[in-house]
Amino acid sequence: MATFELTKDYLEKIEEAVSKNDLVFLNSELDDLYPPDIASLLFELNGPEAHTLFQLLETEKGAEVLSNIDSDDRKRFIKEQFTVEEIAKYVNLFDSDDAVDLLNEQSIVIREKVIALLEDREQARFIIDLMHYPEDVAGGLMQKELVKVFTTQTVSECVEEIRLQAENVDKVYAVYVVDEEQRLKGIVSLKQIVLARKNTKVENIFEDDIVFVDTTKSGAEVADLMQRYDLEAIPVVNSLGRLLGRITIDDVVDFITEKAEEDIQVMAGITGEAEEDDSVWVLAKARIPWLVIGAIGSLLAASVISSFEGILSKVGALAMFIPIMGSTGGNVGIQTSSLIVQSLAERSGLTMSLGERLSKILLVALINGIIIGVLAGSYVYIVGQPQLFWVVCISLLSVVLLASFMGTITPLILDKMGINPAIASGPFITTANDLIGISTYFFIAYLLLHL
Amino acid sequence: MATFELTKDYLEKIEEAVSKNDLVFLNSELDDLYPPDIASLLFELNGPEAHTLFQLLETEKGAEVLSNIDSDDRKRFIKEQFTVEEIAKYVNLFDSDDAVDLLNEQSIVIREKVIALLEDREQARFIIDLMHYPEDVAGGLMQKELVKVFTTQTVSECVEEIRLQAENVDKVYAVYVVDEEQRLKGIVSLKQIVLARKNTKVENIFEDDIVFVDTTKSGAEVADLMQRYDLEAIPVVNSLGRLLGRITIDDVVDFITEKAEEDIQVMAGITGEAEEDDSVWVLAKARIPWLVIGAIGSLLAASVISSFEGILSKVGALAMFIPIMGSTGGNVGIQTSSLIVQSLAERSGLTMSLGERLSKILLVALINGIIIGVLAGSYVYIVGQPQLFWVVCISLLSVVLLASFMGTITPLILDKMGINPAIASGPFITTANDLIGISTYFFIAYLLLHL
Repeated sequence: MATFELTKDYLEKIEEAVSKNDLVFLNSELDDLYPPDIASLLFELNGPEAHTLFQLLETEKGAEVLSNIDSDDRKRFIKEQFTVEEIAKYVNLFDSDDAVDLLNEQSIVIREKVIALLEDREQARFIIDLMHYPEDVAGGLMQKELVKVFTTQTVSECVEEIRLQAENVDKVYAVYVVDEEQRLKGIVSLKQIVLARKNTKVENIFEDDIVFVDTTKSGAEVADLMQRYDLEAIPVVNSLGRLLGRITIDDVVDFITEKAEEDIQVMAGITGEAEEDDSVWVLAKARIPWLVIGAIGSLLAASVISSFEGILSKVGALAMFIPIMGSTGGNVGIQTSSLIVQSLAERSGLTMSLGERLSKILLVALINGIIIGVLAGSYVYIVGQPQLFWVVCISLLSVVLLASFMGTITPLILDKMGINPAIASGPFITTANDLIGISTYFFIAYLLLHL
Repeated sequence: MATFELTKDYLEKIEEAVSKNDLVFLNSELDDLYPPDIASLLFELNGPEAHTLFQLLETEKGAEVLSNIDSDDRKRFIKEQFTVEEIAKYVNLFDSDDAVDLLNEQSIVIREKVIALLEDREQARFIIDLMHYPEDVAGGLMQKELVKVFTTQTVSECVEEIRLQAENVDKVYAVYVVDEEQRLKGIVSLKQIVLARKNTKVENIFEDDIVFVDTTKSGAEVADLMQRYDLEAIPVVNSLGRLLGRITIDDVVDFITEKAEEDIQVMAGITGEAEEDDSVWVLAKARIPWLVIGAIGSLLAASVISSFEGILSKVGALAMFIPIMGSTGGNVGIQTSSLIVQSLAERSGLTMSLGERLSKILLVALINGIIIGVLAGSYVYIVGQPQLFWVVCISLLSVVLLASFMGTITPLILDKMGINPAIASGPFITTANDLIGISTYFFIAYLLLHL
């Protein structure tokens, strides 16, 4: 297929066809599109138009489209356009993990009505089971749909089991092997099933040395394991070792992408999950907290400057170097903290001790501080302010050392406190280091200029 | 299996066993560990120790371990410890894409010797084919190993084909269907093969509506497609539609993670791919470019301040608000540009026109500029500098508007020029906006204070 790209022209054609009720054209277009592309298309239409188009889909394709719409958009779309009966019709066909995601977007009342209306009672049970888990642990990422067999069964019984579950389990990858108490014993890959003789016993071919996780494992750790061991699915067990579900790689890829976007937003000082196409209010609200914190930090810096009014009025040129102290502090702080945050996120390999970390980072700071110091020192001479040479050089070196120290310990402390250390690679560290940079500068000026 | 964690104690035990040549202990430990974990372990040992341990592995497991070592570490390890014959022995068993990665780390001489020494001549041909492609396009990400059949074959012939390729193709997922000229026609999933009757013709069951890519497709677009359509493998064709290879999800997950780390480093102002455990020199070198650029920007700001020396000497309190102008400009610039960069990276959905983008962003800026302006304005009154009220308020509002404008157009321009727009969400935009903020402030002070 040609890659789908949503253009303005195409969108207008669809809108026109919807308004003219041109079913022939719409049905043929919908036939050609994959569910994720239809989801993108619906997002660009207004509610009633989107609903008209959506209702042209067969229930099964409709369910796939619905499971591909972004959470916020879906919440609004369903609220405005769907009855509980309609919701239930589609959720009935969802994978259990996607069903829980959709239901968690709804009010409790609607959630319970939909669960009560589900035709597939196994699906209802699955959903109720999964609702207990927080969103970002293994339990919250898993789906209940999987194929399982006993060690005593044969390969042809595996095939029969796959056939029975064929509609429920879209991607099989492997058959899970359990004992009579549902404890996970191992897996048989689809490839092994294809290649083995029909009457071979599972116990003779299954792989017992497998990677699995507990329901409480964090999403980040699950992603890490699946990436490390190149897994396309990972089984999830409870504390007794009983097989509860599995997590598939597509959900983990989504998880990794979302986390990466979140980290970048944290670094950029944006709260919540804003996107360019959100409303002006949402965007303004997402930005204001860090702007206010940054402003407060800068106003504290203003108070520091004001308290050194005496020196400043005698050596006016001191004002010239306020920007370099603030920005160097901020830049060094971010550089340092982001490397620490990155190495905290990597769980493989040996971790360094605090002493090793600090001594290394302070050495790096010393090298860079001297380079920046010499650069700024030369400028001081060029612009004819030689009396400020030592003030600027020593201040810059101190600022680089202090900012490196702060950039190292802040994420480590946050991590120890159970707070996402990525916060320390954003405006927080810039603001703190701006302030520290400027205070250090004036304090050193005060000491060296003997005024 | 219990999740592997590399501790200092464990490492010491291994080091001791290596020095004592305690083969019983080492072999039993290596037996228990997965290849990626052995790779982590080797990284912590010194070269000769690592080589001793590595040689205890069977060739096949050794090949898997070697394909799991990070590029830089592997390059050094191989250079110091391996003969070309040894390299060839392991590369012989690699997937073709991993083999190319390893060989690209070596000098041309070694690369050619290794290829000449490969026992598996098909592998040698595969490698030579793949070497033509740049690293980050579909051709550079694909592997040649796959199972393919003709439409005229039967399901049992598919199984036979899978059996023949079982050693070469670790993860099968699906069988690709081609015509006599090797043009891709569709796929048959492993699940379909398991469930179909043995004598069914491929032409009766294969899926012809599939997603594939050209060799020139960028890695980011491949990742996007595989994520969008939940694919665990995507076939790669040439311009004639002939099937050349496939890209598997594990490689795409690695690609996504690396890109995310790169974006964060770009934002943090770190050049190259530094990690906390790199040497002091590497770390210092990775940081200095942006520190120098930041320092130059700040020294330009110093020159701006110095050119307004006249006003500053009359109204010394002006110095107090230098930090807030710089940091607000920087913060707003990063917030704006990172949202633009993010929406440039998302290829689905409709893109906004420049006019729509700017009008929305300037509205957001107006709201936030007024809030920050009022906050700083109140501070101006509290510290008893009412003559600066309008200067500070109007300057802040202008700075927020200007920084938003810059934060919007810079990534768009970079993107148009084919440069990674993420650069605009790093120190570049902070430095530029620091400078713009301070210049605006002094210019407005000059206009309003009539000095």
